[in-house]
Amino acid sequence: MGGFELTLDTLRDLAEGAAVLGTGGGGDPYVGRLLVEQQLRAGRAVRIIGVDELPDDALVLPCALMGAPTVFHEKLPGAAGIVTALRTLEDRLGRRAAATMPIECGGFNSMIPLVLGAETGLPVVDADGMGRAFPELQMETFAVMGVPGSPMSIASDHGDAGIIDAVDNRRMEMLARAVTVQMGGSAYICDYPMDAREVRRTAVPGTLTLAARIGATLRQARDDHRDPFAALTAMLADTIYSHGVVLFRGKVADIERRTVAGFARGRVRLTAMDDPGDQMEIVFQNEHLVARRNGQPAAIVPDLICTLNSETGAPVTTEALTYGQRLTVYAISTPRIMRSPEALACFGPAGFGLDDPYVPVEQLVGGP
Amino acid sequence: MGGFELTLDTLRDLAEGAAVLGTGGGGDPYVGRLLVEQQLRAGRAVRIIGVDELPDDALVLPCALMGAPTVFHEKLPGAAGIVTALRTLEDRLGRRAAATMPIECGGFNSMIPLVLGAETGLPVVDADGMGRAFPELQMETFAVMGVPGSPMSIASDHGDAGIIDAVDNRRMEMLARAVTVQMGGSAYICDYPMDAREVRRTAVPGTLTLAARIGATLRQARDDHRDPFAALTAMLADTIYSHGVVLFRGKVADIERRTVAGFARGRVRLTAMDDPGDQMEIVFQNEHLVARRNGQPAAIVPDLICTLNSETGAPVTTEALTYGQRLTVYAISTPRIMRSPEALACFGPAGFGLDDPYVPVEQLVGGP
Repeated sequence: MGGFELTLDTLRDLAEGAAVLGTGGGGDPYVGRLLVEQQLRAGRAVRIIGVDELPDDALVLPCALMGAPTVFHEKLPGAAGIVTALRTLEDRLGRRAAATMPIECGGFNSMIPLVLGAETGLPVVDADGMGRAFPELQMETFAVMGVPGSPMSIASDHGDAGIIDAVDNRRMEMLARAVTVQMGGSAYICDYPMDAREVRRTAVPGTLTLAARIGATLRQARDDHRDPFAALTAMLADTIYSHGVVLFRGKVADIERRTVAGFARGRVRLTAMDDPGDQMEIVFQNEHLVARRNGQPAAIVPDLICTLNSETGAPVTTEALTYGQRLTVYAISTPRIMRSPEALACFGPAGFGLDDPYVPVEQLVGGP
Repeated sequence: MGGFELTLDTLRDLAEGAAVLGTGGGGDPYVGRLLVEQQLRAGRAVRIIGVDELPDDALVLPCALMGAPTVFHEKLPGAAGIVTALRTLEDRLGRRAAATMPIECGGFNSMIPLVLGAETGLPVVDADGMGRAFPELQMETFAVMGVPGSPMSIASDHGDAGIIDAVDNRRMEMLARAVTVQMGGSAYICDYPMDAREVRRTAVPGTLTLAARIGATLRQARDDHRDPFAALTAMLADTIYSHGVVLFRGKVADIERRTVAGFARGRVRLTAMDDPGDQMEIVFQNEHLVARRNGQPAAIVPDLICTLNSETGAPVTTEALTYGQRLTVYAISTPRIMRSPEALACFGPAGFGLDDPYVPVEQLVGGP
C-alpha cells in the first residue's frame, strides 16, 4: 500500500494548517494533536493514503467528533468512543471498513481520523467532505452530490452508542445533534458510508496534505523570517485552492459573541493600523461567513476567511479573539467542486441565511 | 396457537380498562382504539396470547409510542412508524420477532401493540412491563429484574429510524427522549428485546385481559344501573390486583397544572360533597403519584390511584380535570411483582422524588 506514514513533525504542520482551514471555527486542533502524538509515541502508526490507492468497492467510513468546539476543551476526548462509532456502523452495514477519512479537514476534526487510524490500523484517506470546516452534518460535498449520510453511528466515551437512519441529511443532523447534547455536548460519529468509487467522485481531494503543506509553509516562513502571507499565497498557487490573498491588516476594535442554539455566533470589527476609518467586519457562525470592508463584501462563504496573527501567520479562532489583537484577514478560494450551484445552495451564503450573493473571492478582490 | 382473537366489543372494553390503569396519565386510548378499529374493519386480525403459549426461545419485542400524551391528540399516529420500529430492531438483532407485547398496558400504549399485531400478523402477548402507566422507559419490571432495554429502536411516521445501545436503561431513556423531541414530540419504540422465558420471569402477566375485564365490568354496571365501584371491587378480588377500594368521593375544588421538562406536573384538590372540610389532594407527574386525605397518605405509587366519574365510573385523565367535576378517587393494589424493594426503588415514591415511604394501599385504608 502506498501513501506515507505520519511523523510527529508532519502532524504538527497538519494541525496548524487544519486550524487555518478551520476559518475561525472547527475547534482548535491542539488537543486532538496531543491525542495523535500519544498514539505515535506509543509506537502506533498512522498511514495516510490517496483515494486512488483503494479498489473501487473498498468501504470507507468517514469520522468526526460532533458538538460544540468549546466542549472539546473541557471534556478531553478519548479514543474509546471513536472506535465504538466505527464498530457500530460496521455492524450495522455487516462489513468492515477498508479505510477511514475526515468528514471535515478544518480544525479539530482533522485529527479524529488519525486517532482512529492509529487505534485500528486503518489507513486514512487524504480527502474530506468539507474542504474546510462547516457547522452542520449536511454541509458536505458528499451530500451535495447525492450520497446519503445515513446510516450513521454515534457514540460517547462512556459506552453509549446509536444508529441514525434518517430520511435526509438535514433530519440526520437534527437527530444527531439532539443525541450529542444528551451525550454531554460532544459525540463521535461515522457517517456517509461510501465505497472508494464514491469517495473519488464526491470528496475534496488532498486536503490532509494541503493542511500539512499550509502548516509547513507558515513554519518555514517563521524560521526564515519571511512574510508568512506571501509564502502562503505562493504555496497555494499550485493547488486547487489557488487564490490566497490578504484582505485586510488591522487590530480588533470590537467583538460581539453569543452562543445561540449550540452555535458560537457573532461578529468582529477590525480597524486598519494607519487609518481608523478603514474597517473590516467579519460575521461568524462557528466559522467566518462573510468579511465586509467598509460595508462591501470582500469574501464570502464557502471561500475561506482566515484570521491570522499578523506577525506569525498563526491562526486565531473566534474564541481567542481579543480587543487590540493585530490580525491579518486572509482569504482562500475554495476548489471548483465546492462552488457548483448545488454546493452553494447547501453551504454558500443562502445555506447560512445570508442575503449576499456568492461572488468568488478572486473576483471580489483580484488574484495575488 | 391458542389465545383469542380481538373483537370490536372486547377492544372497546380493553380501551376503557386501559384508561383506568392509566391512573390519570398514559394518554387517552381513544385515538389508539380508532386505529385498531380501522385495522379490524379492514379485515385484519389481532390475536392475543398467553406468554405460556410461546416456546422458551421465541423472540418477543415489546413496543410503545413514546412522548407527551398531549402530542398524540394533535399528531394522529399512523401505523407506518411502529412497523419501522419493529423491523429496525429485528434487523439489528438479526432475528425476526415471534410476538410483540405492550411495554405499558395503561392508557394509550395498550393500543400500539394491537396496531402492530394487526399490521404484521404477530400475536400480542397478554402481559406488560409496567402493570399500569409510568412516565419513563426505565420504569419497567423488565429493568427491575435485570433485562437491558438496549438495543432499542426508535422511528417516526416519516421514515426516520434509529437504534440506541445505551450502557444502562436510564441513559437509554435520556437518549430516546431527546430523539423523540426531534421526531416531533412522539416516536415509536421497540425496546427490552427478550425471549419468552424472560418475559415469563419479568412481565406483569395478564394485563391486557385485566384491562378488558375492567372495561367490561364498568360497561355492564352502567347497563344494569349498578354501582360501578362495587362491581369493580368484586371483579378485582380474584386477580393479582386484588384490592380495589374507593378512597374518596368529592368535587374538584382546585387544579394546578404545568408542563415541566416534557411532563404534565400538578395537583388536584377535591372536597367531600357533604363536608367541605374533608379534602383529598392528589399529586401527579403524568400519572397520579400520591393521594392525601386531610394531609394523610391514602394511597401512593406504584399502587394505582384512579380518578373516575362518580356516576359512570369512566376514567378521567389529568388533562380532562375541570372545576366542579364530581369524581370518585379509586385505588387498586399493585401485584407483588411490582412491590419488591428493587421495584419500589425504581418506580415507588423514591423513584419520583417523594419523601413518603411506600405503604400498601390495603394497609393504609383497609381492604374492601
